[in-house]
Amino acid sequence: MTVGIVGTGLIGGSIAIDLRRRGFADRLLGVEADKVNAAAALELGIVDAVVNLEECAAQADIVVVAVPVGTAVKLLPQILDMFASLPDGGRKVLMDACSTKSAVIEAVRNHPMRGRFVASHPMAGTEYSGPRAALSGMFDGRACVFADPQDSDTDALEIAEKLYDKLCMRVVRMSAADHDVHTAYVSHLSHVISFALALTVLEKEKDEKHIFDLASGGFSSTARLAKSGADMWVPILLQNRDNLRRVMHTYSAFLEDFDKALETGDEKALRSLIDNANRIKRIIR
Amino acid sequence: MTVGIVGTGLIGGSIAIDLRRRGFADRLLGVEADKVNAAAALELGIVDAVVNLEECAAQADIVVVAVPVGTAVKLLPQILDMFASLPDGGRKVLMDACSTKSAVIEAVRNHPMRGRFVASHPMAGTEYSGPRAALSGMFDGRACVFADPQDSDTDALEIAEKLYDKLCMRVVRMSAADHDVHTAYVSHLSHVISFALALTVLEKEKDEKHIFDLASGGFSSTARLAKSGADMWVPILLQNRDNLRRVMHTYSAFLEDFDKALETGDEKALRSLIDNANRIKRIIR
Repeated sequence: MTVGIVGTGLIGGSIAIDLRRRGFADRLLGVEADKVNAAAALELGIVDAVVNLEECAAQADIVVVAVPVGTAVKLLPQILDMFASLPDGGRKVLMDACSTKSAVIEAVRNHPMRGRFVASHPMAGTEYSGPRAALSGMFDGRACVFADPQDSDTDALEIAEKLYDKLCMRVVRMSAADHDVHTAYVSHLSHVISFALALTVLEKEKDEKHIFDLASGGFSSTARLAKSGADMWVPILLQNRDNLRRVMHTYSAFLEDFDKALETGDEKALRSLIDNANRIKRIIR
Repeated sequence: MTVGIVGTGLIGGSIAIDLRRRGFADRLLGVEADKVNAAAALELGIVDAVVNLEECAAQADIVVVAVPVGTAVKLLPQILDMFASLPDGGRKVLMDACSTKSAVIEAVRNHPMRGRFVASHPMAGTEYSGPRAALSGMFDGRACVFADPQDSDTDALEIAEKLYDKLCMRVVRMSAADHDVHTAYVSHLSHVISFALALTVLEKEKDEKHIFDLASGGFSSTARLAKSGADMWVPILLQNRDNLRRVMHTYSAFLEDFDKALETGDEKALRSLIDNANRIKRIIR
């Protein structure tokens, strides 16, 4: 099987590494706009060749688009156009790995080749980026969402499922709308609050040089996501802004509950907030 | 050396384990109000005996108070009173391990034995509690604050420094006021935002049972501190509420910057916020 990876960064690179290692792909083609990343992906053996989008669409059986969502919405219809012009295009499969799903699906909604596209979101990652951050095993045991799977051809879904099975992911099917609400809660909000935490303490550092001397594991854990880059996160936050803003407003209301309890010295209210928050123990180890 | 540990939980227990293992203490006495924890501390060999506060003050060369700050402010003057009534009380050292420093210092400010007290904050921990959570090596390489050290006797400071040296901590000296501002930024704020995150997603779970299906490592990292218990954190947040509320307001203003940028679709503003937040890479690996 020849697999084309459009965007050979953290996500695309990690997919490529395990598809080769686990015998799913015998040839991997990379499409990479950034020359340094392209050279690194070749040097690391993540892909066998770096090609242009047309060559990738023509030669690959499966094309996985793993670029920021703002770029993906442009590339996905172009790749389906290329499929349409190829004799075997109707047997090829196009997948994405974007963190928001409504926009990518909207981008190909009325395309005659829509059935060949599987909107997927393999939910794993780190706060690093680029091919050198790519890792074997990064997806093992994690969830992969298939969004609006009823709009994909059955055989395309089966092929996509086999690919994610090789990555040891469990596939969860849901609507694009539900996906985007869920991720606003369990992923996008975490990033925004981590960015805001980093900004708050960095701001203080301007007049208090040693503010970080006392930072310990708790701070690092909460601020870790603030290392995530703008290239990936600006498009995600913008694409999902309506859901995200709603969730942020709920979150801010809880912060205000804390503020009110602190202002009035209300020990009972604070205890109730913390006891309730502790129920998260059920979810995270 | 005989060391008394008042509160044989995560912090007191971890101190005891390494003071014994590293040859600083040859006898460890525990004072523990919770019977289950007292039995566990004995069974685990964290302390050699569980005694009452008077026995601890009489027999120990150093008494380390590692209980929630609301209890510590009551016990510290009582222990200094006991020191005052003992023939060798003027050679004993009292230390605390509380996460806020102004209130504990205020509690003993005018005590005739004030010089025997070293206000210290060994900055390490986990989100777990109790003697079974105690760990060897938990303090290694971390910072320990001595607050207002000028108010402690020189020999008491030296003994406290030797103790923390055995725990492989680097001692940082600062005023209690500075300590409380610093910890509001790098510790207490992280806890509040983590609690609020947990509350937000748990609230959604009421009508969306599968909201956590997609939670990944990023969420766990940001919400980890929300497992921290109310017994410890209610007193900390209340003691430091003025500093904390100020920091929370700065933090909320950054959240509002994100909200505004999202509302207006201002890509440039979002990018600038995230780029600035990324400077945290300098601080955390």
